[in-house]
Amino acid sequence: MSTLAVRNLAPRIRAVSQLPVTRNVPTSTRLLGSLSGKAQLPIGSSPSNSAGISKPTTLDSRVFPVHYSSSSYSATSHPSADLQATDISITFPSSPAQSITLPYIWLRDSCPCPSCVHPSTRQKLHRTSDVPLDIKPKRLTWVHSLDKDAKWALEVEWDRPLWKHDTGSTGVEGHTAAAGHVGGEGHRSQYSERWLKTWSDESKVKERNQDSALSMIPWLAKDLAEEGGKSKLFFSYNEVQRDEKALLGALKQLTNYGLTVLRDVPTTITGEWELEKVANLLSHVRETFYGPLWDVRSLAAARNVAYTDLDLDLHMDLLYFENPPRYQLLHCLRNRNVTGGQSIFVDALQAAQTLWKEDREAFNLLATTDVGFHYINDGHHLAQRHKTIVVDPSSDPSSSSPPKITAINYSPPFQAPLPSSTPPAFYQALQKFAATLRRPEGRWEYLLKEGDVVVFDNRRVLHARRAFSGGSNGASAAGKKDAECNRWLKGCYVEADAVADRIRVLGTKLRVE
Amino acid sequence: MSTLAVRNLAPRIRAVSQLPVTRNVPTSTRLLGSLSGKAQLPIGSSPSNSAGISKPTTLDSRVFPVHYSSSSYSATSHPSADLQATDISITFPSSPAQSITLPYIWLRDSCPCPSCVHPSTRQKLHRTSDVPLDIKPKRLTWVHSLDKDAKWALEVEWDRPLWKHDTGSTGVEGHTAAAGHVGGEGHRSQYSERWLKTWSDESKVKERNQDSALSMIPWLAKDLAEEGGKSKLFFSYNEVQRDEKALLGALKQLTNYGLTVLRDVPTTITGEWELEKVANLLSHVRETFYGPLWDVRSLAAARNVAYTDLDLDLHMDLLYFENPPRYQLLHCLRNRNVTGGQSIFVDALQAAQTLWKEDREAFNLLATTDVGFHYINDGHHLAQRHKTIVVDPSSDPSSSSPPKITAINYSPPFQAPLPSSTPPAFYQALQKFAATLRRPEGRWEYLLKEGDVVVFDNRRVLHARRAFSGGSNGASAAGKKDAECNRWLKGCYVEADAVADRIRVLGTKLRVE
Repeated sequence: MSTLAVRNLAPRIRAVSQLPVTRNVPTSTRLLGSLSGKAQLPIGSSPSNSAGISKPTTLDSRVFPVHYSSSSYSATSHPSADLQATDISITFPSSPAQSITLPYIWLRDSCPCPSCVHPSTRQKLHRTSDVPLDIKPKRLTWVHSLDKDAKWALEVEWDRPLWKHDTGSTGVEGHTAAAGHVGGEGHRSQYSERWLKTWSDESKVKERNQDSALSMIPWLAKDLAEEGGKSKLFFSYNEVQRDEKALLGALKQLTNYGLTVLRDVPTTITGEWELEKVANLLSHVRETFYGPLWDVRSLAAARNVAYTDLDLDLHMDLLYFENPPRYQLLHCLRNRNVTGGQSIFVDALQAAQTLWKEDREAFNLLATTDVGFHYINDGHHLAQRHKTIVVDPSSDPSSSSPPKITAINYSPPFQAPLPSSTPPAFYQALQKFAATLRRPEGRWEYLLKEGDVVVFDNRRVLHARRAFSGGSNGASAAGKKDAECNRWLKGCYVEADAVADRIRVLGTKLRVE
Repeated sequence: MSTLAVRNLAPRIRAVSQLPVTRNVPTSTRLLGSLSGKAQLPIGSSPSNSAGISKPTTLDSRVFPVHYSSSSYSATSHPSADLQATDISITFPSSPAQSITLPYIWLRDSCPCPSCVHPSTRQKLHRTSDVPLDIKPKRLTWVHSLDKDAKWALEVEWDRPLWKHDTGSTGVEGHTAAAGHVGGEGHRSQYSERWLKTWSDESKVKERNQDSALSMIPWLAKDLAEEGGKSKLFFSYNEVQRDEKALLGALKQLTNYGLTVLRDVPTTITGEWELEKVANLLSHVRETFYGPLWDVRSLAAARNVAYTDLDLDLHMDLLYFENPPRYQLLHCLRNRNVTGGQSIFVDALQAAQTLWKEDREAFNLLATTDVGFHYINDGHHLAQRHKTIVVDPSSDPSSSSPPKITAINYSPPFQAPLPSSTPPAFYQALQKFAATLRRPEGRWEYLLKEGDVVVFDNRRVLHARRAFSGGSNGASAAGKKDAECNRWLKGCYVEADAVADRIRVLGTKLRVE
């Protein structure tokens, strides 16, 4: 949070505000820049002219007066700023010099001062739409930053207030009342060097949000091994509970690869379910019509193939939902005297990227053709359509690398009849995708052990189960007690947001420590 | 579920299968159709030739033999079927005659027989990608349907089996083992008239899924009144609990308008929270970092403007989530000796459609420009980007009616600084949208009464609250007991899928009763 924190600079602001806002600069003020409102006309000290005192130039009569000064108590090298028609161009005295160009409207809207971003709630106190389109700086000053990671801060005094919308037209007026002088004439914003460098640069914003820790890495089975052959997938539940670094490792494994296994999770079947604790360690349980937690055991007259001892083909869960749950947890409570029943996981994201490389047309068909999924059984009627491959609409279709894929929707057992108008080429495209998913190099097969909790990303990783024998199956299971069950998984779903939240908070904490 | 149910026709299938699969039709079989494999060549009896017996025509030598017959015990009018290169064209003897054309591959893939769709789990037992692209009918027969809503069923015997993928390459083989003869030579599919008419027609599929009960109706405040001036929004909680028709009414009000109020919900503040029961009546609680249920009361050092007595501008909750929760519930537990605090709701979907009509360029900018939202406070770091208007990518941009809008993302208090590269025109577009949202005719303002639960669609309806005075606010609230609180809302979030599920199930049930 410190990146946004700009402490209250009121005393200094008052000191600076004593400077008369005119073209005639008092001699008591040590100018480090010059004046200009002309588009493209460079003004201010260059990095090599760090203490360059220059006289105010004549202003273009069309533009506002700008008073550009440093604070009076420092003369060390500071960045320079050039005013253009609608932007400020700032050059940092680094080697090589780094320049950024920032629109006035963007700067005013993003003002991080305590009157614009509430110091306690961190909520923004004006609307982007309250900023006049033609707002301009009236005075620029380089001041010493109070942000410990930055030396200088750019103070901008604005030429006009924000728009206010009275209660009669909006029904809401409060933020202006709450924020005091927001919207007042001559609002002063301060932007530290670090703030400017972060928010002007997409890659730094992503770094700040730790996007790389959250990004999906497509995998084949071989990619799940560390150097030396050890699997990346397994984490000790004990360790993850007591060591935040281990927890962060497991969470990042999950977000990056969409698959991780926690080992030695207590399998007690009386009292509270340990799985709920695991879910709360990662996120929050997302309850569905299957309940908050549910059981995978073979049953007579099963309402789901999962609840039999049959083979269960590669699929995803709950695609008949608008937003299928992101992560699925399966806790192996019992697996004894059973033959078969291996779990299989395939990264459908990797398969989709492979398809993109091998058959662009098939990829595009899967990204644009609706497939329906439904669950109409047992007192429920759920139905939803999805594209098989969900491509981020911001992706550039002409790019030479695969577009950003946000989710895969592939679950043959829950498919509804396709729209009868489905183009014939779609069937061929789906066959190619299915063939890619079948490639042995993509498949990670594993027999769950009692105490394992496998966690996987239900929006990208397909799961399957081989048939088994020896589990309490069919009618014979009906009379059995829980403890007598030979094969029993307990499952639940959790959402992605809390996982990302924990990764960012732990990431920041562990970097700092 | 009855629409999909095709009962086991094994005895009849066996009877029909005694017909030799050759071009020479035995005289003992009463033919109601003729043979052809030629594209576009109409075959079979026309509707006006209901019992028309015709001799087999000579088959084009390139195509497979087709045996097209009725079952032997009926001669009443049945639909006709024409075989084309890759499709069957079926004409129903209605007035005017209704024709549909269905691809072979689609028909085979969609076979609803108990070997293709498991009778108990209702899950599909093969993959669309298992159907050979060039599969064709070998024999067509009109038989009496066992579906009570249909007279005839088309039986198709297929010329080749489904593909099988052995365990070595897929790791999954089971569904074939489970399903018996799926994939075998000469699989027979039966499609009742009703099944054919439903699944060949998008509008009927939508009707089956009760899309109109779920569709979003854009509104202005005046549209919330029934004829005669009574508001559509209010439902008695008592009635909704005991009368399924009232419950269905409230649920449809919610899905159609995104806003409803349940009245006289018990406000007991000891023991269990009634709000949890309300949430479970509609759906399931979606827990977030605010907890399963949370309180809106004014607090000292609030971490959220909601927890103050300040005005709270129009916004949506949790847009820093990947999938913000769909519905929000707010239960007014206490509201006494308080001035102000009215709730305001605006349909942002209506505003977006208005913008589409008035300024297409602004609409398109809002549909394509990323806006970041974040919550970086209080031990959390959540961040996400969304488009302000989310347009269904299947929408036709050249259509003369507004595209399908799946969600609006508008929440100024939680905005992060925009990307600095945001085009200047976006600011103008956002101002137009904000101005549209401010129009008084769109605003429904209401002072929550104790016992009210307002439920609204957080993905389309904005909410706001006027400032109030007299609630236990600031530091003075800290020492107060719950019962002494003057203004207290309890809230929670629920997802959309269970709401749609309940609407469909109740809709089917109440239509049948």
